[in-house]
Amino acid sequence: MELLKKRIVQDGNTIGNDVVKVDMFLNHQIDVELLNEIGKEFRKRFSSDKITKIVTIEASGIGIACIVAQYFGVPVIFAKKGANRNVGDNLYKADVYSFTKGTTTTIGISKDYLSKNDHVLIVDDFMANGKAVHGLLNILNQAGATVEGIGIVIEKGFQPGGDSLRSLGYKVESLAVIKSIDDGNIIFG
Amino acid sequence: MELLKKRIVQDGNTIGNDVVKVDMFLNHQIDVELLNEIGKEFRKRFSSDKITKIVTIEASGIGIACIVAQYFGVPVIFAKKGANRNVGDNLYKADVYSFTKGTTTTIGISKDYLSKNDHVLIVDDFMANGKAVHGLLNILNQAGATVEGIGIVIEKGFQPGGDSLRSLGYKVESLAVIKSIDDGNIIFG
Repeated sequence: MELLKKRIVQDGNTIGNDVVKVDMFLNHQIDVELLNEIGKEFRKRFSSDKITKIVTIEASGIGIACIVAQYFGVPVIFAKKGANRNVGDNLYKADVYSFTKGTTTTIGISKDYLSKNDHVLIVDDFMANGKAVHGLLNILNQAGATVEGIGIVIEKGFQPGGDSLRSLGYKVESLAVIKSIDDGNIIFG
Repeated sequence: MELLKKRIVQDGNTIGNDVVKVDMFLNHQIDVELLNEIGKEFRKRFSSDKITKIVTIEASGIGIACIVAQYFGVPVIFAKKGANRNVGDNLYKADVYSFTKGTTTTIGISKDYLSKNDHVLIVDDFMANGKAVHGLLNILNQAGATVEGIGIVIEKGFQPGGDSLRSLGYKVESLAVIKSIDDGNIIFG
């Protein structure tokens, strides 16, 4: 998606050879107009009319998922992190290791909102090692839901998440794939 | 907002006399169509054309803020919770006590995205004691930004947050104010 790649080059900040910060428009400040273009693009790439739910994980996936969901006419569910007395125990759960934070978090989705009749599009802002998506797949598997696809805004192509999911047979669409970061220059794949 | 009140009665679950769970449509599963109606209503109630940013706090405020922002044509910024090596130190920070979790969290917004030229609408899903909004006000005050108003989806009118902010002179608009919960019945104010 050219508009997105241009924006990453224009407003992204690289740190070393493996981090791109897109805080300015994607996951701290959020350019909602750009998200609408992202929503249209995901609708094109995932044209199935079977999709019943968009599933993501808190926090930075939520805004993207909500704008994207408008193009599918379905609700969003976001997996919650950690324990919360208002969530209760009626949850599908999975453990997710975060390389960014160096910690493992339990994520959960209420059993009330996912069933074997659901056809799910997973949406998230970033894919690096794919641990968050694997956690969501674990939860969707517990619910017996069908995974229609995985839509990622920015994939770090030099990390194994995307390819490991494709090799398992999932339809993974990443709107910008970063092949490498070389001395501050972002090379797309 | 009648549509919202009806939905709270229909799909909300009360716990005792002080908790209403709206996980089914607002802060776990999210009904994006309802959020669009909420966005239109906030636009009506905050008609200022000075607003430059919508500010909220992760996690459950983000989806609401993004849909609402479409009606204002401005970006969203969400305050991040806790420490994260990708956020850096260039932050306005405030401490927020959560009665739900019984813990204090430091929230932060990058100094890059808020300035004295900003006119901000704060948006959040719930107002009870108002601690989250007070934390955001603290941050906006550090940035020298102007607060144009505070838009809350559901206010617990029997807790002091909303009235304490109104008494400080803020324009607080809550789309549904719950006056009391009596034996499972939700009474609106």
